[in-house]
Amino acid sequence: MQKLEQLYEGKAKKVFKTEDPDQFIIEYKDDATAGNGEKKGTIVGKGVINNKMTATIFKMLEEKGIPTHFIELLSDNEQLVKAVTIFPLEVIIRNTAAGSICKRLPFEEGQALEAPIFEFCYKNDDYGDPVINDNHATALKLATQEELDAIREMTMKINEILKAYFLEKGINLIDFKIEFGKTNDGQIVLADEISPDTCRFWDVNTGEKLDKDRFRRDLGGIEEAYEEMLKRVNG
Amino acid sequence: MQKLEQLYEGKAKKVFKTEDPDQFIIEYKDDATAGNGEKKGTIVGKGVINNKMTATIFKMLEEKGIPTHFIELLSDNEQLVKAVTIFPLEVIIRNTAAGSICKRLPFEEGQALEAPIFEFCYKNDDYGDPVINDNHATALKLATQEELDAIREMTMKINEILKAYFLEKGINLIDFKIEFGKTNDGQIVLADEISPDTCRFWDVNTGEKLDKDRFRRDLGGIEEAYEEMLKRVNG
Repeated sequence: MQKLEQLYEGKAKKVFKTEDPDQFIIEYKDDATAGNGEKKGTIVGKGVINNKMTATIFKMLEEKGIPTHFIELLSDNEQLVKAVTIFPLEVIIRNTAAGSICKRLPFEEGQALEAPIFEFCYKNDDYGDPVINDNHATALKLATQEELDAIREMTMKINEILKAYFLEKGINLIDFKIEFGKTNDGQIVLADEISPDTCRFWDVNTGEKLDKDRFRRDLGGIEEAYEEMLKRVNG
Repeated sequence: MQKLEQLYEGKAKKVFKTEDPDQFIIEYKDDATAGNGEKKGTIVGKGVINNKMTATIFKMLEEKGIPTHFIELLSDNEQLVKAVTIFPLEVIIRNTAAGSICKRLPFEEGQALEAPIFEFCYKNDDYGDPVINDNHATALKLATQEELDAIREMTMKINEILKAYFLEKGINLIDFKIEFGKTNDGQIVLADEISPDTCRFWDVNTGEKLDKDRFRRDLGGIEEAYEEMLKRVNG
């Protein structure tokens, strides 16, 4: 399968058409940004790690009944996926309060939440990816109510699977951001990636952060944290 | 009924205890603020107008089956109400996009909405009264899920009643903010006020704004607009 026209270049990935209209190739990059693009840098080896980790996790989720866009790994930093139209929604689950929610609302970093907090954010850099509710999403035609309901239900299932999966590997899944897409035949599938770029992973025993917060907050040991996470997932 | 200890002074009203633990007295003020208190002023006669208009509208809503805190008018700028604990939620319905939503999200001022947009905002000046969802509200213990569901259902009914009520008076109800409280015996009731301070009212024929936007946006004719609205409601 060959990469043809580049469809999209995001902060961490490029997406290419292929000869098959139902398949795309995703190339993972080492580029890292934070704070809506205000901070830029490179995390050496990140593209390879996130590509491999996403492949492993999406395969595991498929086996547990979650439809995803993943087809197969093509190389260290490329994977073949189903062609999808991405919903312009960041779908967020928080099991423990951390990051932006502690600035927006009176939550303490590290505060356990009795029930997961589910959030839709509108993927729109001009408006700062704001938190929205279902009424905003349908009024802006980002998705239908039925699609939002399906996405919410799948996300709650994914959270339960991922929490248990990472706990076995000594990791507390603090929060994560996922995205969904619609295939050419109308199926809603999990798309994008699941990696230290898009989740907060805290070591169960030490509380050590093994995710992109090391980059956002200049904590050092960034590459080592990403490598440690790949080892726990693929090891 | 005498005013005893002052319980609360807000931007537009004072609330007093009475000898009856189940009753409060609300005194409406002429003070006006906008932009989270950044702009301050006086709208002469506003306290009297908002007191009388709220009384008329809450009586009308009670007759149509909506429980409210209203008991009776005491004077031009005072009313007797049931003692309630206010939920720290601004409950907003938007029938047409206007105001803050056009800054937060890509809506045009005056854009008709196919379905009403319902919003909960967390009443908290330190955090800028942010839009929140049900999960945030329950995690912050602002209300239970059952209370949020009851508030949402009552609010949708109130919107249908108010839209028709104001249309008969030649007014398009663009949006409004209401608040709910819980009585000493646990009933959830509509509280606070319904007035040009808390609604956007546009004349059906001319589109003229007959609400607090005249103050917020320095449009002049503020007192005249409030008087016109009282005339349409009580006339």
